[in-house]
Amino acid sequence: MQLTSQKTERGVTERDFTVEGARDPVPGVLWTPEDPATTGPRPLVLLGHGGTQHKRVPNITSLARRLVRHHGIAAAAIDLPYHGDRMSDEERSLSREDRRRRMRERMRSEQGHEAASQRAVDDWTRTLDALQAQEDVGAGPVGYWGVSMGTRYGVPLVAAEPRIRAAVLGLFGWAEGPRLAGYDDEARRVTVPLLFLVQWDDEVAARDYALALFDLFGSTTKTLHANPGRHVEIPGAEYQASEAFFALHLLS
Amino acid sequence: MQLTSQKTERGVTERDFTVEGARDPVPGVLWTPEDPATTGPRPLVLLGHGGTQHKRVPNITSLARRLVRHHGIAAAAIDLPYHGDRMSDEERSLSREDRRRRMRERMRSEQGHEAASQRAVDDWTRTLDALQAQEDVGAGPVGYWGVSMGTRYGVPLVAAEPRIRAAVLGLFGWAEGPRLAGYDDEARRVTVPLLFLVQWDDEVAARDYALALFDLFGSTTKTLHANPGRHVEIPGAEYQASEAFFALHLLS
Repeated sequence: MQLTSQKTERGVTERDFTVEGARDPVPGVLWTPEDPATTGPRPLVLLGHGGTQHKRVPNITSLARRLVRHHGIAAAAIDLPYHGDRMSDEERSLSREDRRRRMRERMRSEQGHEAASQRAVDDWTRTLDALQAQEDVGAGPVGYWGVSMGTRYGVPLVAAEPRIRAAVLGLFGWAEGPRLAGYDDEARRVTVPLLFLVQWDDEVAARDYALALFDLFGSTTKTLHANPGRHVEIPGAEYQASEAFFALHLLS
Repeated sequence: MQLTSQKTERGVTERDFTVEGARDPVPGVLWTPEDPATTGPRPLVLLGHGGTQHKRVPNITSLARRLVRHHGIAAAAIDLPYHGDRMSDEERSLSREDRRRRMRERMRSEQGHEAASQRAVDDWTRTLDALQAQEDVGAGPVGYWGVSMGTRYGVPLVAAEPRIRAAVLGLFGWAEGPRLAGYDDEARRVTVPLLFLVQWDDEVAARDYALALFDLFGSTTKTLHANPGRHVEIPGAEYQASEAFFALHLLS
């Protein structure tokens, strides 16, 4: 793991890092408490961004800083494949809509769900290994937060990664089901305490599919929170609920 | 309003009272902070029990005491028609199942939803008038908490009573829909901030009906919380959520 830059603001130290991925370097950010007296092991929450987003979108940086400040929980985000700093200059010059179309086409033609999620899970596993080797993180309990594409790849990650002990997922439904063969089984293998977010008027993730997915999760402790509004309109209260959820399950 | 008894325990004063109802006296309990220095107006939460239950069931007394102790919010519960102290000795001697059957038959033959809910709303309105006349309650903001039958009668109450500013409802679905004619319109007239509880494996209130009811509410601020489990298995965390919900909406 290479640390490329570091800054500290209002008690939170933010470090950019790069981890070696299977096909290309994986760029990420680690947020930890500034106070050097607090060494690890401490809980760590992995934050998975949504489609066309990147590791520093406002909902992720805000939740990361709150976890550090309010609970001393470390947080980390990476750019998922083809996103953020892993985008080519040519892709970066496209409009958001053209970029989104390109990403969808790539998923369809090149990979399929299993290959794509295997790559994302591999990126996260390498990242988690590297982060837990950091002195002020260590091998504490791990949480995962990710909605929309963060749930598409979060479900296989949480199903596969025994270090993850609690997860916040949601805003996911995929109209073209057959391509996600295997996803239902992955959902059944998610058994950790789970908070699942639904936007009642979600124009991207169909409500019925989201409810069906909640049904599939193998977790005995799972709660669904639904609020009116469209895909990207998660109310602030659900970020507070996410924070409280991780404090409950990772600190006690 | 007649006060019939009073006791104080761990900072909470509990007073039994009777309010004159349209057809028979309405017995109730009022919980307030012990400290006599804290006079009203203060927020008040009305707690509506479920079918075959009464004003002092454990989930109601526990939530009432927490609201008083943690937030200085007053709380009150009444026996709804044909329940608790409003039951005849003959009814009281029946088994729970026979009593439940009797209550259902009575609702069907004698009243229908509109008459039954009109009577419950009338009881609550008289109770609220009397409680707000108490010096240590006063005319502060009012909340309503009630699931199952507490939602059956809670929806018409919240729709009709402008003093109620926030409500926790849930666990309600009625298989025989036509008899609840008018209920959908009442649900649309509920416009206050709302927390709606769903038990995912509810054997009494059908999940689909509960989701459809959530859809109907006119509130722009509404959140649905769903948890695995049967009708009477609401997890403790949802009582904490109810408490936080009233603190947010009645104290700020």
